Amino acid sequence: MKKINAGIVGATGYAGAEIARILCLHPYVNIAALSSVSYEGQCYSDIFQNFRNILDLTLENADAVIEKSDVIFASLPHGLSEPLAEACLEKGKLLIDLGADFRMYDENDYSAWYKRNYSHPDIHKYAGYCLPELYRDKIKEAKIIGNPGCYPTSIALACAPALANGLVQTENIIIDSKSGVTGAGRGLTQGSHYPDTNEAFSAYKAGEHRHTPEIEQTLSDIANVKINVTFVPHLLPVNRGIESTVYLSLKEGVTKEEVIACYEKAYSGEKFVRLLPSGSYANIKNVRMSNYCDISLHFDMRCKKLIVCSVIDNMVKGAAGQAVQNMNIYFGYPEDTALCAVPQQF
Amino acid sequence: MKKINAGIVGATGYAGAEIARILCLHPYVNIAALSSVSYEGQCYSDIFQNFRNILDLTLENADAVIEKSDVIFASLPHGLSEPLAEACLEKGKLLIDLGADFRMYDENDYSAWYKRNYSHPDIHKYAGYCLPELYRDKIKEAKIIGNPGCYPTSIALACAPALANGLVQTENIIIDSKSGVTGAGRGLTQGSHYPDTNEAFSAYKAGEHRHTPEIEQTLSDIANVKINVTFVPHLLPVNRGIESTVYLSLKEGVTKEEVIACYEKAYSGEKFVRLLPSGSYANIKNVRMSNYCDISLHFDMRCKKLIVCSVIDNMVKGAAGQAVQNMNIYFGYPEDTALCAVPQQF
Amino acid sequence: MKKINAGIVGATGYAGAEIARILCLHPYVNIAALSSVSYEGQCYSDIFQNFRNILDLTLENADAVIEKSDVIFASLPHGLSEPLAEACLEKGKLLIDLGADFRMYDENDYSAWYKRNYSHPDIHKYAGYCLPELYRDKIKEAKIIGNPGCYPTSIALACAPALANGLVQTENIIIDSKSGVTGAGRGLTQGSHYPDTNEAFSAYKAGEHRHTPEIEQTLSDIANVKINVTFVPHLLPVNRGIESTVYLSLKEGVTKEEVIACYEKAYSGEKFVRLLPSGSYANIKNVRMSNYCDISLHFDMRCKKLIVCSVIDNMVKGAAGQAVQNMNIYFGYPEDTALCAVPQQF
Amino acid sequence: MKKINAGIVGATGYAGAEIARILCLHPYVNIAALSSVSYEGQCYSDIFQNFRNILDLTLENADAVIEKSDVIFASLPHGLSEPLAEACLEKGKLLIDLGADFRMYDENDYSAWYKRNYSHPDIHKYAGYCLPELYRDKIKEAKIIGNPGCYPTSIALACAPALANGLVQTENIIIDSKSGVTGAGRGLTQGSHYPDTNEAFSAYKAGEHRHTPEIEQTLSDIANVKINVTFVPHLLPVNRGIESTVYLSLKEGVTKEEVIACYEKAYSGEKFVRLLPSGSYANIKNVRMSNYCDISLHFDMRCKKLIVCSVIDNMVKGAAGQAVQNMNIYFGYPEDTALCAVPQQF
Repeated sequence: MKKINAGIVGATGYAGAEIARILCLHPYVNIAALSSVSYEGQCYSDIFQNFRNILDLTLENADAVIEKSDVIFASLPHGLSEPLAEACLEKGKLLIDLGADFRMYDENDYSAWYKRNYSHPDIHKYAGYCLPELYRDKIKEAKIIGNPGCYPTSIALACAPALANGLVQTENIIIDSKSGVTGAGRGLTQGSHYPDTNEAFSAYKAGEHRHTPEIEQTLSDIANVKINVTFVPHLLPVNRGIESTVYLSLKEGVTKEEVIACYEKAYSGEKFVRLLPSGSYANIKNVRMSNYCDISLHFDMRCKKLIVCSVIDNMVKGAAGQAVQNMNIYFGYPEDTALCAVPQQF
Repeated sequence: MKKINAGIVGATGYAGAEIARILCLHPYVNIAALSSVSYEGQCYSDIFQNFRNILDLTLENADAVIEKSDVIFASLPHGLSEPLAEACLEKGKLLIDLGADFRMYDENDYSAWYKRNYSHPDIHKYAGYCLPELYRDKIKEAKIIGNPGCYPTSIALACAPALANGLVQTENIIIDSKSGVTGAGRGLTQGSHYPDTNEAFSAYKAGEHRHTPEIEQTLSDIANVKINVTFVPHLLPVNRGIESTVYLSLKEGVTKEEVIACYEKAYSGEKFVRLLPSGSYANIKNVRMSNYCDISLHFDMRCKKLIVCSVIDNMVKGAAGQAVQNMNIYFGYPEDTALCAVPQQF
Repeated sequence: MKKINAGIVGATGYAGAEIARILCLHPYVNIAALSSVSYEGQCYSDIFQNFRNILDLTLENADAVIEKSDVIFASLPHGLSEPLAEACLEKGKLLIDLGADFRMYDENDYSAWYKRNYSHPDIHKYAGYCLPELYRDKIKEAKIIGNPGCYPTSIALACAPALANGLVQTENIIIDSKSGVTGAGRGLTQGSHYPDTNEAFSAYKAGEHRHTPEIEQTLSDIANVKINVTFVPHLLPVNRGIESTVYLSLKEGVTKEEVIACYEKAYSGEKFVRLLPSGSYANIKNVRMSNYCDISLHFDMRCKKLIVCSVIDNMVKGAAGQAVQNMNIYFGYPEDTALCAVPQQF
Repeated sequence: MKKINAGIVGATGYAGAEIARILCLHPYVNIAALSSVSYEGQCYSDIFQNFRNILDLTLENADAVIEKSDVIFASLPHGLSEPLAEACLEKGKLLIDLGADFRMYDENDYSAWYKRNYSHPDIHKYAGYCLPELYRDKIKEAKIIGNPGCYPTSIALACAPALANGLVQTENIIIDSKSGVTGAGRGLTQGSHYPDTNEAFSAYKAGEHRHTPEIEQTLSDIANVKINVTFVPHLLPVNRGIESTVYLSLKEGVTKEEVIACYEKAYSGEKFVRLLPSGSYANIKNVRMSNYCDISLHFDMRCKKLIVCSVIDNMVKGAAGQAVQNMNIYFGYPEDTALCAVPQQF
C-alpha cells in the first residue's frame, strides 16, 4: 500500500489527540504535522504525557500542517473549518472535518441552529456527509469529508433499518441520549469540573441541541419524508461513550420478528455494527476504545413501541475512529485498518 | 412530642441502613431493635462501620423487632412482607413496608408482574399506597403503609400536575429513567461488581421492569383513565440518585405558560418538591442525601412535547426518607422532622 | 442557649458552601450574611442549586458580612485573611479563618513556604491554632481562630499519641496522603477537569506541599523536639475524603499492645476520633459527610514500623466541620452541635 | 516470522481476558483455545460481550488448551499452576504462568506467605522469574515462565537503579502502593461491590500482602543484600492502574543529579520504561491500556529521601502485557509486538 502523510489541525483537543492515538498504529500513515493555536511551539508529548517517546512532534500552525500533509484532519469550533477547507482545496489536499461546518445539505438548517451563514458558500458543493455505513459511495467522490457528529452517528445507525423499510412511524420519535464528559471537550467549564460532574447526572439542551438538524437530515433522507425528532442529551459521569435509547412507534401489524430480520439484514455485512442477540443490552463498556456501534432491539408491545439501544465510543466511532474509517475508504486501504482494537470492557 | 420506638426488619440492606441513618437524628424516635437474617447476633457497627459509636445494637430477629417497636420498617424481598404485616396487625403496630407487597390496588396487577398471588389476601384492605404529596390523606388511615418505589416516586411527581389538569395526552408516554447502583441493592452480582459497572452504562429490563404497574396505577388514578407507559430504566455509574426524563405529548393549544403555572400551583405548598426556574435542569447532585424531588420543565414545541426532568435520591425520597416522611405524618410530627439535611452538591 | 448571627466570607468556594450546609441545621445559629467577590449581588441558591428554598440569601461584600455577624467564617486565598481579621478585631467579632494566615506560630515558617511576610504582624498574637482534640484550651482565649488545614488534621491526630508518649522515633517519619478533588477547590484547572482526573491518580508537590510546616509545627510541639517529615500528597478521584498512611519507626522494645493502649487512652474521651478495632482499616467512606476522624493501627514488626491509617472528610473535619466545632467550643454550645450526622457509607 | 498457537487457561478472569484482548492483535499468534472451569462449553463472547464477532471460541478445559497450543498462558489461584506446569513440561510446551507458584527462588519464602508447600517441587528448576527489564537473559532459558506480580513489577522498576548502584540505604524502605479494582479480580466480594468501592479508599493487608516476599526477593537480588520492606497496598476506585510511591533514604553525599543520571542510564534502552522529566509526576492515566511503566523522581533533601513514583497498568505491564512481552522474547519476535498501543489518557 502507498503510504501517506497525515496532519492534524487542532491536535490538542480531545478529538485531535484521539486521531493521533489511532494514527500512531496505522501502517500506511505517517503523522507529518500537528497544529494548535494555544500550544504552538511546544512539544506534543509535554501536553499529553501519554505520547511521550511515541509522538514527540513540535506543534506548528495550520499552514504548516496543510503543507506537509496529504490528508488533513481538523477538529475546530464551528465556522473555522471553512477557510481551512478552501486552503486545502487550493492545494488539492483532502480535508476530513470533524466539526459541524460540512455536515448539512441545506445552509438554512445550518444557519438556523448555528446562528451564522456560510462564509465560503461555494466550496460546500465539494463536501460530502460521510457516515460510511449509510453513505459509503459518497466518500470517494468528496473533496471535503464532513465527518458525522457523535450523537447523530449513534442515532442514525439505530434508526436506519426500521425507517428505510417503513416498519415504524415517522412521528413521535423520541431520542434520549447520554454522553461521557469527553463529549464536552477539553476546555474548562464549571460543568466539567470534577466535583461538579462526578456523582452527578442531568439532561441539558433538551430539544435544542445543535445535533438535532443533523439527526433529522439523516432520518428524513433515509425515510424519504421530512422527520422531526425530540432529542434530549444528558451528561454521563464517565470519560467516554454515548448511549442512545430511541423510541419508535411500530406500524400496525409489524412483528418483532420482522424488525429483527430487517436489522440483521441491514448490518450483516458491516464490521463495525454489531447487532446483539435478543436479551442483551448495548453497553458503552463493550465498545469503549473501539470503532464499534453495538445495537440492541427491545419491544414494548403493550404500547407498540420499538426501543433501540445504540452505543458507541464518542471519541472513536463518534469522532476520530470514523474519521480514520473515512480516510481508509477514500485512499483504498482496508476499511478497518488501525481500527481493530478489541473494546476495553474493564 | 411523644417519643416512639422504631425497629427495622432487614436492617443490613441499603434501605435498612438508610432508615437507621435518618432515624439516628430523629428527635422523637428511639431505635429499639434491628434485625437481619444473614447477620443475626452480630453488632450493627461491625457490618456498617460508619455507625461505630453511633448505633452499636446487636442484630436480632424479626419477632424481637416487632416486640420492641411501635413502628416497624421493613425492607425485604417481595413476598416476605405479608406474614410480617399480619404479625404487626395482630400486635397493633404500624408497618411501613418498603417492598412491593402492599403497593398495588389490584392483586391481578401484582400477580401479573411478580408471578405470585397474595399469601395473605385479607390484610391488604388495611394497606395504603402512601406517596405523601399525592395521597397525604390516606396515610393516617392506613395500618400498613405501602411505601412507594423509587422510580415510581420520581415519575408520579413528574407527571401528576400535567395529567391531573388534562394538559397532556394519555398515550405515547415515554419514560427514560436512570438509577444509581444502590438501587440494585447490597447483594453481590456481576452487574454491580465495580469494574463491570464503573465507566459503563446501559438500559436494562426495557419495557418489563416490575415498577411499571405501580407507575401505571398512579398515572391512571390521577388522569382517571387507564394509562400504559413505555418505561426503560438504565443503570447509572453513581452510588445514589434517580433521574427520570418523561416525554409527554401536549394537547392541542396548550402553552408553555399554562404548563408552568399548573406545576407551580401544584407544588407551591410542597416542601419536598422544588420546581426549578426555567433554563435549569434537575440534577441528581442537588438532591443527594436529601428528601427533595427537583423537577424541571422543558418544551419541544416543534414536536409538541413536554419534557419533564425529575430527580430524587433513590435511597431517601425514593425509599428511607419517604418512609420517615410517612411515619412523621402518621404520628403527627412535623412532616420534615429529621429530613431537613441540605443536599450534598459535591 | 443564646442564638448568634454567623456570616461567611468567600461563601461560593467549596469550604464556604460546606459551612453554610452545616450551619443550616445549627439550632443556635442564624446565617446572617454571605459574601463573594465573583458573585456579589446574585442569589446564593442560583450558584448552588442544592440550597434552593433553603438558603436564598443575596451575596454581599465582606464588610456587610462583618457588620451583620457575631462570628465570621472566612475561606480565602492566603494573604487575604489578615486585613479581614483586623476589621473583625476592631469590631470585636470572632473570626474563624479556614485559610493559612493564622496557623503558624513563627512568621519565618510562614514566609519560607508561602513566599510572603505578614502584612499585619501585630494581630497574630490574638490568633490561636485551634485543633480541638489537641488544643481545646486555646480556643476560648483566641480572638482569631486559625482553623487547621485538612492534611495536617488527619496527620496530627494519627501521630499525636505515639509521639506524645515517646513510643516512636522522631526521624524517618513518612506520610503518604491522598485527597479527594474538592481539596483542590472550586476554581477551574486542567488538573481537576473531569476527563483528566477520573480514572487517574498521581502524587503532586512531593516534599514541597505548603501544609508541611503546619504538620511539622504540630508534631514538633507534641514531641517537644524539632521534627521534619517527608510528606507526599496524592490526588484521589473521589469528591471527598483524605486518607493519610503514616509510617513511624517504633522505638526498641515497644510492643503492639503498648501502642494500642496508648491510642485508646488518648482518644477514649473524644467523640470525633474513632479508634478502629484491630483488623479494620480506616476508610474514607465511613467518615464521609461527618466530622469523624477514623484511625486504624497496623504493625510491620519485621521492620519495626507502626503504620497509622487516618481518614477524615476533608470538607468537614478537614475544614468546615472543624470550624463549627471550634465555634461551638468558643460559644459554649455542646461541641457536637450540628455535627452529629451519621457518615454516608454509600 | 513463524506463527504459533496460543491458549489461555483461566480465560474468563480479568487477566485471561486481557491476554485474549492483546493476542487478538498479535500478527504471529493464533488463539487456538480457551478454558474456564466455570463457563466450559459456553461461547467466550457471551461471557465478555466486547469480544463479539472478534473471538467467539467455545470455552474448553485445560487439557484441550494444552493439546492445541504451543504456548499456554495460565491465570489461576495459587497452587493450581503446578500440575498444569507438569503437564506442559511433559508435552514440551511453554507455560507462562501469571499466578504466584513460580515466582519465588526459595520454597520457604513461598510456604511462609502462601501457607502451603510445593506439590511438584521437582519442576521448579525449570522455572524462571521473568521481569524482562531486569532478567531478560533468563527468559529464553526457562521452560516455565513465572510472570511477575503487578505490585512487584511497579516496585522493582522503581527501585532497581538506585539499589543496583548503591545510592540508597537498604533499610527503612517504605512502599505505599495503590491499585485499581481489577487487581482484586473478577470474583464477587463485598469489597468490590460498586457502592462499597466507589467514592471509597483505604489501605488493606498492611505489612502482610503476599507480594511482599516477591518484592523483597527482587530488591535483595539487585542490592545483593537481604532487604526487608514495609509494603502497604491501598484499593483505588478506578478500574485499572497501580501507583507505587517508594521512599528511599539517600546515602550520605548522594546528589539529585547522580540519581537522575543513574536512572537515565538504566532505562535509556528500555522501550517500556519512561523516565519522566523533572517536575512531572507519574500518573496512571498516562500508561493505561499500555505496557509502559512511567517513573518520576522526587527529592526531599531536608530529610535526605529519594521518592520514586512508578505507575503501570496492572492488567497490562502488571499482568497480560508483560506475559506477552515474555512470550515475544522467548519466541524471538520483536519485544513490543502487539504492545505498541498508545496509552489512553482520557
